[in-house]
Amino acid sequence: MKRVAILGATGSVGSQTLDVVRRFPGEFSVVGLAAGFNLESLVQAAQEFHPLVVSCQRHEDTLIALLPPKCRVVSQEEVASLSEADIVVAASVGRAGLVPIMAAISAGKPVALANKEPLVMAGEIVMAEAMRKGVDILPVDSEPSAIWQCLRGEDKEVSRVIITASGGPFRKRSPEDLRSVTPEESLAHPTWSMGRKITVDSATLMNKGFEVIEAHWLFDLPWEKIEVVVHPQSIIHSMVEFSDGSIKAQLSLPDMRLPIQYALFYPRRVENSSVSRFDPVETGALTFEELDVSKYPCFRLALEAGMRGSTYPAVLSAADEVAVELFLSGRIGFTEISDLLDWVLSKHNPKSNPSLEEILEIDDWARRMSYSWAH
Amino acid sequence: MKRVAILGATGSVGSQTLDVVRRFPGEFSVVGLAAGFNLESLVQAAQEFHPLVVSCQRHEDTLIALLPPKCRVVSQEEVASLSEADIVVAASVGRAGLVPIMAAISAGKPVALANKEPLVMAGEIVMAEAMRKGVDILPVDSEPSAIWQCLRGEDKEVSRVIITASGGPFRKRSPEDLRSVTPEESLAHPTWSMGRKITVDSATLMNKGFEVIEAHWLFDLPWEKIEVVVHPQSIIHSMVEFSDGSIKAQLSLPDMRLPIQYALFYPRRVENSSVSRFDPVETGALTFEELDVSKYPCFRLALEAGMRGSTYPAVLSAADEVAVELFLSGRIGFTEISDLLDWVLSKHNPKSNPSLEEILEIDDWARRMSYSWAH
Repeated sequence: MKRVAILGATGSVGSQTLDVVRRFPGEFSVVGLAAGFNLESLVQAAQEFHPLVVSCQRHEDTLIALLPPKCRVVSQEEVASLSEADIVVAASVGRAGLVPIMAAISAGKPVALANKEPLVMAGEIVMAEAMRKGVDILPVDSEPSAIWQCLRGEDKEVSRVIITASGGPFRKRSPEDLRSVTPEESLAHPTWSMGRKITVDSATLMNKGFEVIEAHWLFDLPWEKIEVVVHPQSIIHSMVEFSDGSIKAQLSLPDMRLPIQYALFYPRRVENSSVSRFDPVETGALTFEELDVSKYPCFRLALEAGMRGSTYPAVLSAADEVAVELFLSGRIGFTEISDLLDWVLSKHNPKSNPSLEEILEIDDWARRMSYSWAH
Repeated sequence: MKRVAILGATGSVGSQTLDVVRRFPGEFSVVGLAAGFNLESLVQAAQEFHPLVVSCQRHEDTLIALLPPKCRVVSQEEVASLSEADIVVAASVGRAGLVPIMAAISAGKPVALANKEPLVMAGEIVMAEAMRKGVDILPVDSEPSAIWQCLRGEDKEVSRVIITASGGPFRKRSPEDLRSVTPEESLAHPTWSMGRKITVDSATLMNKGFEVIEAHWLFDLPWEKIEVVVHPQSIIHSMVEFSDGSIKAQLSLPDMRLPIQYALFYPRRVENSSVSRFDPVETGALTFEELDVSKYPCFRLALEAGMRGSTYPAVLSAADEVAVELFLSGRIGFTEISDLLDWVLSKHNPKSNPSLEEILEIDDWARRMSYSWAH
């Protein structure tokens, strides 16, 4: 039995992780669950999976009373570094995951990573600590999982990685039309059902920028070897070209449970009949289009911040978290997300080789600046 | 330096193998070359690569005199089992390769296999001998090379293999129109430049049937796990689906030098800037269509023969070799290729667990029957 702790357990990836655990009785036990504010769902999950510990940002005695008898309420870091856990699934949203992920790595736990922002904010620090501890960072998101699967058994003679992007819900809209986009429209993703933050990030293509930065850190790839191409069907999740010119691609119908299962069972592949199979004839065509960077300034800003390095990506990530929140609450328009980011990034005095604490301070600064922009 | 012996050295794959050798000076030396009847090209290649031995079905003193001083003329089997060879590239056409390939395996040489018919004729015998000798059979054809590459680093938890077929030059022709197909039309393949026999086999889809049989033997796959789908661009060369539902595909622009290089260097991947790179945006779409089996009776006959097993596949292969020859010389029509095969197969009394000698006798019988059908 592999003992699993899940951060962000009540979110989209967290609950799909529980779904995978449910489908393989006897393979996994859930030893820890951490959530943000959804205490109801956390308690419900605890009643079903009987973890040793849970953690929540919210406390309500009447709900806590419903936890199973032996289940202790602890901090997120304690869930992440639980001695009884064999693997930690990091499925929080945004900055919230960074400190617990570092705690998991420092405790020597392999991390199944769905939470991109910590790598964007502090990729160098996270990967260095993983290296120091000899801990695997196992990607859970479909694109980096695809790259990881394509690299399996290969000597990393990589000449190019091609990350695919669905293009989001506004692929066919003109740049002018993007001004009037509503939160509801941006939450209607054409191929993936995901959490709210990542769905808006997918609409602005910020999510794809994050994936480029993530791939840079996870697979130690120089920027010039990472390409992004629009692939509206979201069936080829990414491709890796090797030095001889041969390309491997990983394909499957869009279903997050597949990369979750792959990371949880790795290196085993285990039969899963609940995942719908790709039918090439039914699909008919896998198409590709150039990513129109001029239409997606967030993508460009992400790449620029990634390549500039130092604390720019942390500012990008923090400002984006605020901008998406402001957009979803109707306080700024869709195209103002990038305006806000651009402005906050322009005000930033970068700090080279920042410590984790410095990154968190800069994150705080970037959040304050982002709110000030909107006033 | 890897020392290479090449069977079928003057054919399409043979000369492309020499091209690969030429591109990597210092990596390979050519120690043996065997050809069918093209003594001119063989002598020319010997002058360039200075092999220790050559072999040809044709002898002409004036040409033999032009061989480099220390180059000996020997039998094909001697080229195949040359003690100085580290690897044997089997690139002959049809039955001609079977006995030399067995000689190479028996001599303990890894075989880079482009020549499909020997596996069709005697897959069980060839693979059993390779197993007994602990010798690798390294596929060189693009589809089995794709499967092999996709299996790299995996535990063979394969649920399905999807072999792609370009559909050949007559994909859009009606079955009625196929009656009037000329040899010239059938030799104009839309995506691949290959030898004459395999090009006609590609037009009838016999080649795809052969590949199914080849995959069955090379990768120990049950028939029901092998699918064929039409993919007109010939960029995805095949796909492998694993038990968890994840699919890996191997892609590259159609260029035989890539699978040749992969087999020669295996397990190394080596930079090759001469191979054109896949550009997803330029390609635009990778499309898939169902294979219309009713239009391609040769494909159906191949699958039936493969599944029936025993000596049926040997009869299929022998009759096809004659039928293609008769078609190319204008003595039978395109749609008569399958009529001839169907008739010869119907006359066959199968022999279970045949020896190599029995397979060669049955091959002789099938050839005689095939010629008699055309008279």
